[in-house]
Amino acid sequence: MVVKLGLIGCGAIARTHVINIKKNIKNAKIVAIYDLYLTAAQKLIEDTKIESKICYSIDELINENIDAVMICSRNDAHLEPILKAIHHNKYVFTEKPLVDNAKDCKKIIAAEISGNKRLIQVGFMRRYDPFYQEMKTEMTSGNIGEPLMGYCRHFTTHPATSYFKTENMINDAFIHEIDILHWLFEDRYQSIQVQFARQNSLNINEQLYDPQIVTIKFKKGAIVNTYLSQNSQYGYDVMCQIIGEKGIVQLPDMPSIETRYNQNISRHIDKDWTKRFDLAYKLEIKDFINRVAREMPLHGPSSWDGYIAAVTADAAIQSQKNQKPVQISYDKKPDFY
Amino acid sequence: MVVKLGLIGCGAIARTHVINIKKNIKNAKIVAIYDLYLTAAQKLIEDTKIESKICYSIDELINENIDAVMICSRNDAHLEPILKAIHHNKYVFTEKPLVDNAKDCKKIIAAEISGNKRLIQVGFMRRYDPFYQEMKTEMTSGNIGEPLMGYCRHFTTHPATSYFKTENMINDAFIHEIDILHWLFEDRYQSIQVQFARQNSLNINEQLYDPQIVTIKFKKGAIVNTYLSQNSQYGYDVMCQIIGEKGIVQLPDMPSIETRYNQNISRHIDKDWTKRFDLAYKLEIKDFINRVAREMPLHGPSSWDGYIAAVTADAAIQSQKNQKPVQISYDKKPDFY
Amino acid sequence: MVVKLGLIGCGAIARTHVINIKKNIKNAKIVAIYDLYLTAAQKLIEDTKIESKICYSIDELINENIDAVMICSRNDAHLEPILKAIHHNKYVFTEKPLVDNAKDCKKIIAAEISGNKRLIQVGFMRRYDPFYQEMKTEMTSGNIGEPLMGYCRHFTTHPATSYFKTENMINDAFIHEIDILHWLFEDRYQSIQVQFARQNSLNINEQLYDPQIVTIKFKKGAIVNTYLSQNSQYGYDVMCQIIGEKGIVQLPDMPSIETRYNQNISRHIDKDWTKRFDLAYKLEIKDFINRVAREMPLHGPSSWDGYIAAVTADAAIQSQKNQKPVQISYDKKPDFY
Amino acid sequence: MVVKLGLIGCGAIARTHVINIKKNIKNAKIVAIYDLYLTAAQKLIEDTKIESKICYSIDELINENIDAVMICSRNDAHLEPILKAIHHNKYVFTEKPLVDNAKDCKKIIAAEISGNKRLIQVGFMRRYDPFYQEMKTEMTSGNIGEPLMGYCRHFTTHPATSYFKTENMINDAFIHEIDILHWLFEDRYQSIQVQFARQNSLNINEQLYDPQIVTIKFKKGAIVNTYLSQNSQYGYDVMCQIIGEKGIVQLPDMPSIETRYNQNISRHIDKDWTKRFDLAYKLEIKDFINRVAREMPLHGPSSWDGYIAAVTADAAIQSQKNQKPVQISYDKKPDFY
Repeated sequence: MVVKLGLIGCGAIARTHVINIKKNIKNAKIVAIYDLYLTAAQKLIEDTKIESKICYSIDELINENIDAVMICSRNDAHLEPILKAIHHNKYVFTEKPLVDNAKDCKKIIAAEISGNKRLIQVGFMRRYDPFYQEMKTEMTSGNIGEPLMGYCRHFTTHPATSYFKTENMINDAFIHEIDILHWLFEDRYQSIQVQFARQNSLNINEQLYDPQIVTIKFKKGAIVNTYLSQNSQYGYDVMCQIIGEKGIVQLPDMPSIETRYNQNISRHIDKDWTKRFDLAYKLEIKDFINRVAREMPLHGPSSWDGYIAAVTADAAIQSQKNQKPVQISYDKKPDFY
Repeated sequence: MVVKLGLIGCGAIARTHVINIKKNIKNAKIVAIYDLYLTAAQKLIEDTKIESKICYSIDELINENIDAVMICSRNDAHLEPILKAIHHNKYVFTEKPLVDNAKDCKKIIAAEISGNKRLIQVGFMRRYDPFYQEMKTEMTSGNIGEPLMGYCRHFTTHPATSYFKTENMINDAFIHEIDILHWLFEDRYQSIQVQFARQNSLNINEQLYDPQIVTIKFKKGAIVNTYLSQNSQYGYDVMCQIIGEKGIVQLPDMPSIETRYNQNISRHIDKDWTKRFDLAYKLEIKDFINRVAREMPLHGPSSWDGYIAAVTADAAIQSQKNQKPVQISYDKKPDFY
Repeated sequence: MVVKLGLIGCGAIARTHVINIKKNIKNAKIVAIYDLYLTAAQKLIEDTKIESKICYSIDELINENIDAVMICSRNDAHLEPILKAIHHNKYVFTEKPLVDNAKDCKKIIAAEISGNKRLIQVGFMRRYDPFYQEMKTEMTSGNIGEPLMGYCRHFTTHPATSYFKTENMINDAFIHEIDILHWLFEDRYQSIQVQFARQNSLNINEQLYDPQIVTIKFKKGAIVNTYLSQNSQYGYDVMCQIIGEKGIVQLPDMPSIETRYNQNISRHIDKDWTKRFDLAYKLEIKDFINRVAREMPLHGPSSWDGYIAAVTADAAIQSQKNQKPVQISYDKKPDFY
Repeated sequence: MVVKLGLIGCGAIARTHVINIKKNIKNAKIVAIYDLYLTAAQKLIEDTKIESKICYSIDELINENIDAVMICSRNDAHLEPILKAIHHNKYVFTEKPLVDNAKDCKKIIAAEISGNKRLIQVGFMRRYDPFYQEMKTEMTSGNIGEPLMGYCRHFTTHPATSYFKTENMINDAFIHEIDILHWLFEDRYQSIQVQFARQNSLNINEQLYDPQIVTIKFKKGAIVNTYLSQNSQYGYDVMCQIIGEKGIVQLPDMPSIETRYNQNISRHIDKDWTKRFDLAYKLEIKDFINRVAREMPLHGPSSWDGYIAAVTADAAIQSQKNQKPVQISYDKKPDFY
């Protein structure tokens, strides 16, 4: 069976998914697309040469003969198509975040539960990364004991966009750590604090404070510090190191040839995320499509994970205001998830 | 355009290619298959659920409406379908070796030249591996100067098959080094010598001498030693280290999480080749299909490379008899390649 | 010239220094020793076979024909012999800390300044470690830009002693980071905060909270987190990673043979500090002795550094009480240092 | 007890030993020195400020009140002082080689055996290197099984001297591998072959062929290739990798800080051997002095090891003439060793 997809939002990340699906996913086809700006939809079709119908409203798209909706629109425009898709019993893959506030997350959760089928997958692709998965396996093995502390680095060579602001450090970068850390630790967050380290003078963006350090505490007491920068200059660098009662487990650097030359032993670091997470981006879509094709419940990051991320990110942004710790409280997790 | 493929030979490697094409290559379809044993063809279709016509002869398959032939049959059964495909002006992807002797390689070269179009690609997938490509780029940069020496390791945890013999160490393992080393060094081989090191007592195969060391000399004087074992026990391990006038460049180990536990810092090594060369296998097919789709001349390992490999492997097998060096001579390289 | 030393305090660390001097330092001799407990002094002589006079008071020892005093007594017993040594114009090597409170540090500083000669060296041996020195050189080179953040790990396999308490984590472990970090950053501390992470259930010492994280902020804004544990179980592990505006510099792991065995690539980590800091311990004494021999002013960690450490450690211990940040203020640094 | 040494030969390596003894070895003193050129002896005293008597002949020196002779003279001048020292029952530390030919080695062996005490230690310092020792321990553990193959690199940034010739590659460089490999493998050499790889155009020394590859075969069948260069340009680099039936063990690179800067992860390699083997040079002398001090039989590389090295080096130099393998045969090893 070929999964028929309707795409909402035709920007940069949509393009990445479209090209991936077109090139690599045999059992999926984007049959309908919609963007608030018609020209964006037209341009996407022109550039990627997909054969899709352009729709003029979300309702029109949802009512097409599609199996699933893929949402790549602005963060504040996710709610409507998600609820409508659930209403029509269609699967949803939505780019992170689920929606941009906790209240709307709860509406989605309520709707999904009432339909009694896991229809939503949020685009936290790190869970599909083989190295994070190896880490989780190692943590589960008991070799390093219970996790006590963590140290993460999430560095981008240069800011993704010129309008990347202090808040985006949470919503666009740290959001990935929010999702992956509670998945790795299997524990809830208790409090969060964002501190601004000495400012990088090479950061030319006045609306961005760079670098920042986020300290997160879990209910069971574990503490994780994440160092965030969009101006590392030297390369794209994601590190996660978990320190347990008996040992440490950490992510590898990406492989590169090693040279010995001029009294140095050197390897390359890449400038962007492509080599590091390309596979994870592909695997999250493959898993989504395969499960839709077989009409199975989804298995990736859920609406509940989207809710956790929204609440936690809100607290982090609140902490950015005075750099003090902010307590976090979540609803009780429904048995459904 | 979707490339229509005819597959000849339906064994293990065929299965790998079929699954890859089915899952990952959107612009290709296997429309016809043939195997000397009808049941093998039937089983392949049953297992992989491809929709292909079963042909009862090579001729029948070649005459189907196909753009290219993919050859996965026994090494001594490559010649006929390749020549017929050239005759019908169809592209050919053939698993290594091109054919199993130098004389037949020359027939193919002659046929291909007379058609005046590069129609043949041999499955030396290492050229598509990003790390070998990085090595070549680094060597071309001049940073390490001219290449003077090399050290390679080609280790398999356990033999691929129970009937893997002393000769297979050349034809099935070292053949990859034959292809990649002259591509890296951009030089011809002058002589080759195979020596048997102390035998591994864990090698239970009486027809296999393991390990072996192959010493290869290039025309310009560079010497490369390749250590070959099918019984490393500890893992699949391919190393290539090139020593130039000013420095060294070498392949990386594959990435894995790093643990600190029990007074050890450890990483995993894989048991088989999958993680190491999976991408290269995919990329060689993608490149082949894309070029066929656009009717471009092929760009991967050519019939000439197949001829080089055949002559060199013959010399290596000859050297296995008394472990003495064997001089190698090749025909003049046609301008066509 | 052979430097004549008087040793005060004959415990474990004294023994290490005595053996080192006896074996490796040709131009020094311990001619007199004193311990509050006569038997400790007698046992040291018996065990190490040094030819030293046993003194019955600090005054007696100071008045011997000695060039320098080496202080290895309890932290709260450093003040008297240091002041007396300064009074007699004798050099002092004292184990860290200088003294156990800031007020007494100031007395020593005042006395030293009034004598107008740098006579005191504090045993912060990390400054003599080649790798910390390489780090400082790299930071000074400008390659990584201004330092913005840091991440340190200071892990011991098991607690040094059974009476190692929560406070000792600062006074006996973190004190080394206090000294080395302001030396590396060339900046003063602004505030300090100690947080207790999830407790390690393998920590059997009820008076020790383990692990702890110390967050230190510099005047210029840089933030450094140090992870402290006396129960790492897996080995002795000291890491220091400084993140600058353009890059990172970090300490190496200690070298060990690398094995490939059973699908693992492994190196050893040592159980204790010996291999890591043995050289630094030797070099600090060599430097001290050589400068005394030539009657040069001392160059190693000074009384002022001792004062910085005392004030900072006090603030850290204060923070341990409620895990809140504590502001730090220092006197103005005298021009003398 | 302080060991009284007589030094013969006052060149560069003598100077290294003298400074080491003066600075680091408390229980040894160089009381007498001799050099064929009086000015060399005078200059050594002047530069190092040792208090030693200058002797005018080997006989005079041997007859001084000394416990041991240290020989640092030219390779062809070792025999006489060694035999005389044995005759006077004095210990001998001699720089490698023992003597420059196998026949004279046998004379020394005969003399030493007739005295019935191991008095001779040859300066193959690698046996004192902690990493070679770790390798041997690992090999003995059985973890990697029996050793089957080896790969070594012995690279110097630039030639040690301007008159370093093709032969010196064996006598001054490879001689270390000769000693360490039979110690690691615990097996005798069967044959040796030297091959010249493509010449390094940056080698400006016309009397030196650089690089060379030495292939050594052991009686039990193991094969080791050693790559030799005095013109690596990039640094001093000694690698030894032993491949066993179940795994690999190899030497580490020397530690250095790691930087991430400008899309590179880098470590330094040193230009010369100091950091790599400084400790081994110190430990071999310490061990020698300590055993002399206690009048114990020596334990380091023996006259027999010197003989093995001499015979093997001769065979290697013979092979350099036509690059063919040369069979090696040794006398039966006396029970004495």
